[in-house]
Formats: sequence, structure tokens, C-alpha cells
Amino acid sequence: MYSKSIQKLIELFSKFPTVGSRTAARFVFFLMKTSKEEIDDLVNSISALKNNVKYCGFCFNTFEGEGDFCEICSNPIRDKTLLCVVEKETDLTTLEQTKKYKGLYFVLGNRASAFKKEDVKGLRIKELEERVKSSEKYGIKADFKEIIIAINPTAEGEAASLYLERLLGPLGVKITRLGRGLPMGAELEYADEETLSSALETRK
Amino acid sequence: MYSKSIQKLIELFSKFPTVGSRTAARFVFFLMKTSKEEIDDLVNSISALKNNVKYCGFCFNTFEGEGDFCEICSNPIRDKTLLCVVEKETDLTTLEQTKKYKGLYFVLGNRASAFKKEDVKGLRIKELEERVKSSEKYGIKADFKEIIIAINPTAEGEAASLYLERLLGPLGVKITRLGRGLPMGAELEYADEETLSSALETRK
Repeated sequence: MYSKSIQKLIELFSKFPTVGSRTAARFVFFLMKTSKEEIDDLVNSISALKNNVKYCGFCFNTFEGEGDFCEICSNPIRDKTLLCVVEKETDLTTLEQTKKYKGLYFVLGNRASAFKKEDVKGLRIKELEERVKSSEKYGIKADFKEIIIAINPTAEGEAASLYLERLLGPLGVKITRLGRGLPMGAELEYADEETLSSALETRK
Repeated sequence: MYSKSIQKLIELFSKFPTVGSRTAARFVFFLMKTSKEEIDDLVNSISALKNNVKYCGFCFNTFEGEGDFCEICSNPIRDKTLLCVVEKETDLTTLEQTKKYKGLYFVLGNRASAFKKEDVKGLRIKELEERVKSSEKYGIKADFKEIIIAINPTAEGEAASLYLERLLGPLGVKITRLGRGLPMGAELEYADEETLSSALETRK
């Protein structure tokens, strides 16, 4: 029904998370009304994203600037006996906002709380295991005494946490999970800072 | 909290309709995982949009290709005694899908159903009036006998419809509205084809 260029862009926006074809159409007509300067700004920002933003060589957090490691990993005052395993960057950011955690992170990938056996390949589980075993080989001199598994407490997330506990337990590191301040089935990304803070404090 | 390029893109996506900062962040991390080819495709499609897509010189529908008029306005078998006034392109598309309407359209702009006195300037009311008075001056030889006002039946939309009725009534054209098949407060864009078809048939 729409013309070719509009239809094409609707299809591309429909691939974005949470976006269906109607919302995609609204995006396109929004862009039709946007000034050339703003369109250029958007296009340049999208094009530059993958050139400017790198993944940290140790924790897979995103960062910009010099070097191979993110601000957290290269910060000398972070506690290098603690490692917190999160699913995705937004969870890391939410935890950082509590200002209660001073250790390092590891970003597993996006799908841990939709964890199924066939998805294990999509997660950075081997990378995690290797960094716990010999962090120095990956550029960070750490001596992890505790690994906090901070995966969304859904049924699938619990399965993923259990899987990680069994995998990392034999390495002689204490494995903990975020305390049950989080209600079952909730999304870590949407938790308020208070709930997250007490979950950090009551970890077991 | 996020790095500069990510934060910038989150701000730009947050301007999109229905998108908040969390959804914008999900878009950015989605793009981080998208291949270079797909990013290029997206960027090129956005850049090309405003070059490829034109507004019809008569009805302000969007179209691509040769000439100054959209496929509907330049189609010789469309009924040029009927004009249907819609708020936006997506409403036009939804009405076309019923295949029950064979006249011309006029796209008012985006905000008619959030109609307030100060918003009249944002709508193409003068352009509508001029095209009803002397269509040939705008490239289409029409002789409108009836104008169907197809604005969302919200309180503000009703005000806009009433305003248009009073404006166009003195021009000696029959003014109708979509029949009350549409429930009060509904969004035209989301109506199913059956409801819209009977609304077209029962217009008064």
C-alpha cells in the first residue's frame, strides 16, 4: 500500500525490538517531517556507532576511547575479588546506578533469561569460564573470591543461574545470587534502585 | 552512564513517537549486534527517504515516481465528485484497504484529533478550502459533490470535524462524516476493515 521507499523502511524498523509494522510506519512518517539536519545527525550517529563503540576485552561491556578495556575494568580502585555476571549492558548500568557494587562485571549476552539448552552457544559462557580461571591472560589481574550471578529471576533465568553455578562452582570460587528482594518474574532492567540495593546486600 | 555515542543515539531515538529512553537503549544495543550490511541498508534507506518520497501536489499523500500527483489523484477512474478528508497517511491507507471508497483524499496533517484552536495553523485547512473551491488550479479537474470528513471520533476530532463542516458548508458541497460504526474515542488507524466499511456505508 505504501510506496517502495516507505515500505522498505517500515520493514527495516519492524526488525527493531518492540516495534511492529504500525509503529514502524509512524517512525517513517515522523522522519518525513524531520528536518534534513536532524536526519543527517541520526544517520551519522547510526553509522558511527559501531566504529566508535568497542566491547571491553575483559567484560564485554561497551565503551569508547583508547585501550582495550572499559572504564570499570581499567579503574584501579574497583574490587578485583568480585565479579558480577549480568545478561546485558542495560542491567550493568542499572546495577552501577545503585553505587553499591564496586567489583568487576561480565556481560553474558542478551538471552540468558530466555535460557534454553540450544541457546547456550549464544551466551559467552566459555569466555566467562576462561576469565574466572585465568583473568591475567585476558588483560586484567584479578583474583575472584566471589561471583555474583545477576540474571533476571525468571524460570529460564534460574535455569541459567543454576547452570553457571554448576560450571563455576568447581573452580573454588564462592557463587552467590542477588538476594530475593526481586520479585519472581521481574525484569532486572526495570527494578528500582532500592530493591536492587537490598538485593545486593542480601545476596547469599 | 552510557558512552557518548550510545547516549547520543539514545537521545535521537527517544524523539521517535512511542519511544522512551529504555526502548531507545534497546534499539542502540540491537544496532550494536546488527551486521554492517544491515546498518548500511538502514542508513541508506533513511537518507533516501526524503529524496525519493514526494507529497502529492493535490492531496498531500506521499508517493514515489514521476509527476506531481499520487497514484490515487492521477488515476482516471477515481470518482472526482467525492473527497475524503483524513488526518494522516496511515488513515488513508487503512481506508483504501476496505476497497469501498473510490473518490479522492485530502491529508490534513497529523494532529487533527488533538485539535485545539492554536493547532489550526498546523493543519492544511487553507489548502483544503482552496482545493475544494478551485481544484483545477491545483492540477486535478474535480467537481466535488460530497466531502467525507474522516477524522478520529474523539472529542477533539469532533471539534475539528465541526470546524471543517462550518468552513466548507457555505461552499455548497454536501458534508458528511463516517457513520457511527466507529466507537467513540477509537483510533481510526486501528479500526478493522469491517467496522470501517460499514462506517463508510452509513455515512450521513
